[in-house]
This record gives sequence, structure tokens and C-alpha cells, in this order.
Amino acid sequence: MGRWPSWGWGLTELWLVGIGTGNPEHVTLEGQRALREAAVVLIPRKGAAKEDLAELRLGILRASGSYARVIPFEMPVRDEGLPYAERVERWHDAIATRWVAALEGAPEGPVALLVWGDPGLYDSTLRIAARLDPAPRVRVVPGVTALQALTSAHAVPFNTVNGAVVVTTGRRLRDHGWPEGAGTVVVMLDGECSFQSLDPTGISIWWGGFLGMAEQVLEAGPLAEAGPKIVAARAEARAKHGWIMDTYLMRRD
Amino acid sequence: MGRWPSWGWGLTELWLVGIGTGNPEHVTLEGQRALREAAVVLIPRKGAAKEDLAELRLGILRASGSYARVIPFEMPVRDEGLPYAERVERWHDAIATRWVAALEGAPEGPVALLVWGDPGLYDSTLRIAARLDPAPRVRVVPGVTALQALTSAHAVPFNTVNGAVVVTTGRRLRDHGWPEGAGTVVVMLDGECSFQSLDPTGISIWWGGFLGMAEQVLEAGPLAEAGPKIVAARAEARAKHGWIMDTYLMRRD
Ligand SMILES: C[S@@+](CC[C@H](N)C(=O)[O-])C[C@H]1O[C@@H](n2cnc3c(N)ncnc32)[C@H](O)[C@@H]1O
Ligand SMILES: C[S@@+](CC[C@H](N)C(=O)[O-])C[C@H]1O[C@@H](n2cnc3c(N)ncnc32)[C@H](O)[C@@H]1O
Repeated sequence: MGRWPSWGWGLTELWLVGIGTGNPEHVTLEGQRALREAAVVLIPRKGAAKEDLAELRLGILRASGSYARVIPFEMPVRDEGLPYAERVERWHDAIATRWVAALEGAPEGPVALLVWGDPGLYDSTLRIAARLDPAPRVRVVPGVTALQALTSAHAVPFNTVNGAVVVTTGRRLRDHGWPEGAGTVVVMLDGECSFQSLDPTGISIWWGGFLGMAEQVLEAGPLAEAGPKIVAARAEARAKHGWIMDTYLMRRD
Repeated sequence: MGRWPSWGWGLTELWLVGIGTGNPEHVTLEGQRALREAAVVLIPRKGAAKEDLAELRLGILRASGSYARVIPFEMPVRDEGLPYAERVERWHDAIATRWVAALEGAPEGPVALLVWGDPGLYDSTLRIAARLDPAPRVRVVPGVTALQALTSAHAVPFNTVNGAVVVTTGRRLRDHGWPEGAGTVVVMLDGECSFQSLDPTGISIWWGGFLGMAEQVLEAGPLAEAGPKIVAARAEARAKHGWIMDTYLMRRD
């Protein structure tokens, strides 16, 4: 199987550095050190909606004491004409191509990318990196995830004693309902408050938007009462800031 | 409902600080700052087996630049005569009592505890803290978990694209088998390589012991082949160090 794209020079080290989820102090000492030891940091140029996040990234980079060459790259646009799965595949191809193009003439040495939260959790950077040929050594620096930002903001445990937790997406919750036998369910990537599709009886919810950030909003309680409050709080925060990131944990008695 | 135990003086702030899982550089800037701003740090005196971990904790504390008063407390022993659930309840009561006794005459101000990984994930500190009366304000500082240490060591994603992940324990895996409908399963608190209870067909595994530490050991591959290697590597590492912590992720095709 041919990988894509190829290049001539020596990108031998690619570092995916987890930076946490909005609080610049979520970054670890290992993350700071990686940014300091990288020769190059690749940063996406983002649309206006996420200006705040671009600022946050630069702030973390500066605070690390990094002298890396910062190289911006333009994010490609998705081809909305394609079916979902193919659209994502082609988009990831295009991002890998942009990385390579941006790195032309860059200083040799480790290239770092700042990845939101932890690079392993609902993030495509590892999959994009797997397209590079020849394959660089990929190093992953773990980071605090939105799940930990959520449970710490509420001071609530992730799991019950010896209990299991299902980590899932809004789409899956809508399509499959409450996961069979699960005591605790955590939902990410949910643009539609998909908890509304559940029978709220016996379910408690802990919700957070903009976790770790100055804009942080929290709601918690029995789903029947807290659900409508969350829908309202989410709409309000979204209207105010123009966008929102949110996640939640639900527990059945 | 009476809470337990009571005290007269003012413990108003209790900070549970996630310190990551073995690599002293897992600690976040927020964690370092909390240790620096605490008036007191409570540290358990541990048995010989975990001397390394006590050293690690002190190293993290020193590196943070903390001037907090360090107060050790003796961990109570569990009453093995009691049934499991009650034994754990009474043990948590006893730990809360030890905290209070240890804090007698301590300087006023925030009291910090260093918690392995993230304080929300399979950890009882939050539940012990809930026994304190009057209840202090409990602040949780998120930390890198063993799950992130595992996926980053292997540079493997936690989830598949839009897929769900079940986080569970060795005991549950043995008792309930592969969770219904799960694509990815992550197992913690497993003293018995419980993956051996599964039909390995179509399952891949990524395993790690002493993640983030100098002693780190990794194995990965199709469960049928990697399983026996993991059993052997685990036994060897355990024999060598006298104890082991390990965790793993399994994925079905
Ligand atoms: C593409 S995923 C990336 C997750 C990230 N890698 C992590 O470790 O948290 C984005 C989703 O994470 C959640 N999320 C990320 N940051 C968040 C924040 N600061 N507050 C609330 N939710 C957040 C939201 O559910 C969002 O839809
Ligand atoms: C009581 S739980 C604590 C988990 C911790 N709060 C966290 O966030 O990772 C202990 C379990 O975590 C896992 N674990 C913790 N540290 C580990 C490490 N350094 N390497 C491998 N597994 C680890 C093991 O499965 C162990 O049985």
C-alpha cells in the first residue's frame, strides 16, 4: 500500500504534544520540555471563530521557553460533495500534504504539533501522521483530557467503585441509546445535547462547557431537571461566544 | 446522616492533586502551583514494596518549589475479617480519621494530597474526603492517567473513529466477558492477566507495565500471540521489582 505524501528530506521525529483542554496550566513538564526541545512547531492557521484557541496555543508555546521555528500551515477545506467517510479520509490526506509543504526548507530536527487535550482521545493527528512516507518516529506526549477537566471541575469520580465507564460520542448515544449494562457514560463530540434522546429516570448528569477556560460553565443534577437547564446554558454560552465545546458524564442509580 | 470524623479547627480547603503515573514530568503546571500554594502536604507512609513511589512523590514535591509543611500519616490496615464492601468502607473511615489526627496542630491553610494519575479514575481519595465533617471545599487538579500513559507509550489512539471505549477492571472482565458491542476495551486493576479468559480471535492488545517509569515494559500484537508474551513479561517484571502496576487496551477488528 502506497503511503502519502512522500518527501526527500529528513523528517525523522514527529512529536504530538498534548496541551490540555483550555487551561494553559494543564500542560505537563514533559509537554513543556518537548516544545523546548523541538526544532520546529507546526501551527494551524484557524478561522476567526477559534482565534481564542490559537492565542492559547501561542501562549503555551511562549511559556515553555521554546525557541523552535514556528511554521503555520493553512487547514484545507473539506470536500462537502463526498460521502462522510471518504470526505474525512481525503481531508486527512490533504492535511498531511500541507504539513509536508509547510516544512519545506525548515530546520532539521524534531517537529512538534500542539494537540488539544490528549493526542489519543478523539483526535485525528495520529491518523494523519500515519500517512507520512517515509514514516517518522512518532512520539506522543500525554495531556489532560476534557474528561478529566470535566470530572475535576465537578469534583466527581469518573467511575463508581469497581464500576465500568463507557466513553462515547453524541452520535452513538442518539443511534444506540444508553449502552447496555453501563453504569457511567461519558459523551464527547455532541453538538445536539443528545442526552435529550434518553428516558431521564434514574440518571444524573454532570455537564461542562469551555472546561478549564475563563468561560467555563457547569451544570449538574438529576437529568430530568438539569437537562433543560443544560440546553439553555449551552445555547446561551454558544450565542455569547459564537461557538462552544462541551462534554458530560451520566450515571444511573 | 452523620459524617465522620469531626474536628474543631479550620480545614476549609482540601486539594487532591493528580501527579501522573510514574514519570515525574507528567505533573502539570497547575499541579506544581497547587503544591507550591498549599500550606500542608499530607503524605502516606508506605510499606517497603512501594518505596520507589514514595521517593517519586517527594521528588515531585521538591521540584515544585513547595515550602508546604509535609506531614506523614500512617495508613491503617484493612480488617480482613470483614466482608469486602464493609472492609473497604471501614478502611476509608479509618484513613479519614488518620488524616484528621495527622493534621492536629498543623498550620492553617490549604491541605494538599498527591494522588496517583488523575484523582477521578479508580481512586478512593474523593470518597474518603467526603467523610470529613465539617466538609472542606474539595478542589481536584486533573492529572495524566495510566490510560494516557499507555496509549502514548504505544502511540496508539484510545478510540477508533467515532467509536466507543469501555473502561473496566480485571474483575469485571472475568465476571462479564467482553462488554456487549464494545470495539475497544481498556482494563485497569487487573492482578491476573484477565484477558486470558477471552476467546482471542480478532482481538489485538496493547499492554504496559510501570508506564512512564524507568522500569517500563511494553508488549503489543494479536492477543493469541501477544497474550502469552504478556503473561511472561509481567511475571518477570514482577519478580524483578517485587510488585507491578499494569494496564492494557484491547481492540476487536
Ligand atoms: C475532537 S475532540 C478532542 C478531545 C481531546 N483530544 C481531549 O483529549 O479532550 C473534541 C471534543 O472534546 C470535548 N472538549 C474538548 N475540550 C473541551 C473543553 N475545554 N470543554 C468541554 N469539552 C471539551 C468536546 O466534547 C469536544 O466535542
Ligand atoms: C488504583 S488505580 C489508580 C489509577 C490512577 N488514578 C490513574 O489515573 O491512572 C491503579 C491501577 O492503575 C493502573 N496504573 C496506574 N499506574 C500505572 C503505571 N504507571 N503503569 C501501568 N499501569 C498503571 C493499573 O491498572 C493499576 O492497577
